[in-house]
Amino acid sequence: MSFPPPSRDKPALEHGTEFTPAFDANGLVPAIATDVTTGKVLMFAWMDSAAVEATLSTGRAHFYSRSKKRQWMKGEESGNVLVVEEIRVDCDQDVLWLAVKVLGQGVACHTGAESCFYRRLVTRDGKTVLERIA
Amino acid sequence: MSFPPPSRDKPALEHGTEFTPAFDANGLVPAIATDVTTGKVLMFAWMDSAAVEATLSTGRAHFYSRSKKRQWMKGEESGNVLVVEEIRVDCDQDVLWLAVKVLGQGVACHTGAESCFYRRLVTRDGKTVLERIA
Repeated sequence: MSFPPPSRDKPALEHGTEFTPAFDANGLVPAIATDVTTGKVLMFAWMDSAAVEATLSTGRAHFYSRSKKRQWMKGEESGNVLVVEEIRVDCDQDVLWLAVKVLGQGVACHTGAESCFYRRLVTRDGKTVLERIA
Repeated sequence: MSFPPPSRDKPALEHGTEFTPAFDANGLVPAIATDVTTGKVLMFAWMDSAAVEATLSTGRAHFYSRSKKRQWMKGEESGNVLVVEEIRVDCDQDVLWLAVKVLGQGVACHTGAESCFYRRLVTRDGKTVLERIA
């Protein structure tokens, strides 16, 4: 299985029913994973065509690691697998949004945090610094 | 103003208080915008260093358009400006998450949809197709 190329017909691309993911020059598409219950953004990673296919066929989030240059299933080592409840695509079909449930210990970040986004930007004495919030 | 380069010290990068955004080879960092009230993912775009600075200094989301090769403020034409309530950064500081409130007509997508993610993937007769949900 592979995906049809993106339509050059903008109305079809933006309003059609055909799923034609637009991979970038490296063959990748960004994927945002949020917690299906809390709505929090858990992590951000990349998918190649095969990772999208693996995610669709297994219902578990698969990504492509740019550093390891291979596909990986989130949680393959940690057990913190992401069960995909819903996948949405954006208007021009070059970004995916996955609403997921985290198995295992329920943490999505390799640091042990629930979400990779555990720090926020705050301004102190006119300088932007990070503050841990989760 | 510019940002310090990413630390090579992993604990500092992942657990420190210094904001050192890691821009990619094109000088860009992905930015996810969610609605601060509903938690929904509204849009995804890219920021260069100047767009991050403009966002921090104005409190309104600025991005870098790869097609137009210039900075733009979301809503500069439509009026659907994104007021930034909070910015978070992920573990390795190469992705930003903005919690925003949408001004104007309250729609974040250029198509007129509230969110760019108005279609979900569904399987019909063994084929993955898109279904409009918002």
